[in-house]
Amino acid sequence: MARTVHKIDPRLDLVLERVVDVPRELVWKAWTAPEYLMKWFTPAPWQTTECEIELRPGGIFRTVMRSPDGTDHLNVGCYLEVVENERLIWTDALEGGYRPSTSPNDCIDSFFTAIIMLEPNGSGTKYTVIALHPDEESRKRHEERGFQDGWGTALDQLVTFIKTL
Amino acid sequence: MARTVHKIDPRLDLVLERVVDVPRELVWKAWTAPEYLMKWFTPAPWQTTECEIELRPGGIFRTVMRSPDGTDHLNVGCYLEVVENERLIWTDALEGGYRPSTSPNDCIDSFFTAIIMLEPNGSGTKYTVIALHPDEESRKRHEERGFQDGWGTALDQLVTFIKTL
Repeated sequence: MARTVHKIDPRLDLVLERVVDVPRELVWKAWTAPEYLMKWFTPAPWQTTECEIELRPGGIFRTVMRSPDGTDHLNVGCYLEVVENERLIWTDALEGGYRPSTSPNDCIDSFFTAIIMLEPNGSGTKYTVIALHPDEESRKRHEERGFQDGWGTALDQLVTFIKTL
Repeated sequence: MARTVHKIDPRLDLVLERVVDVPRELVWKAWTAPEYLMKWFTPAPWQTTECEIELRPGGIFRTVMRSPDGTDHLNVGCYLEVVENERLIWTDALEGGYRPSTSPNDCIDSFFTAIIMLEPNGSGTKYTVIALHPDEESRKRHEERGFQDGWGTALDQLVTFIKTL
């Protein structure tokens, strides 16, 4: 079946693109095994304290992030595309089983969809995240609230974690 | 890959289940070929005046419905699962390419996800629609604004249309 190729819209999308020196099979595992994801997903001193992954289209992707002052933030999303070692798409506009979400996430006050793409690059990985927003305002809010820093720091943590394995 | 089997939640879901005496391959075509869909999709005297279908997960499903007084209503959704002759899932919480929607559809003031399931039944088809809502209020609104009547009448029109072929 033909696959959707995403054409970036700079007005509505945010992009993080980096080459990292760890193999993409391990980057994939870091994104899809709960016990791995909890080690790197949330920039310190925040922590990921819970993680539920049903790795299939329609499956739930649920995390709990704990702030330094001990407040828990629940994030619920739904996987849309799962192509092992290559491509993972999920959105928080839907919950598990494709049910529409009740309310946008409290960090950016809007829903977003994340496309994670992994390509081999020598012995490392070209890592691309595209965040899709419904409108320009929510793209800007996500930018101002630290998309580049947050996702970049999480990726650094992912690489550091993989190297301890 | 394991497929999500939907367990109906009567608090949040609406269900239309009927057996119709037309083969499921033609019911599938009526749902997936724009020139077919436009013939039956909107209970008369409303009309479907435009239809765009990109039949793949992530593809757009876009229709324009014209009311008897000539007002056009745009509906934009996104396909989530496409299993030929068996199962079609789409939501208006996302637009084409999985981008979150800007605003809920004006009929029920909330997003919903539709699961269409077709099973062979003798020479006919068991036809099931499940509409998933984010909360009880939106399920109730959809019910009050005529889910059973609207989807039932559209199905009657679908069957009548197929029999003219």
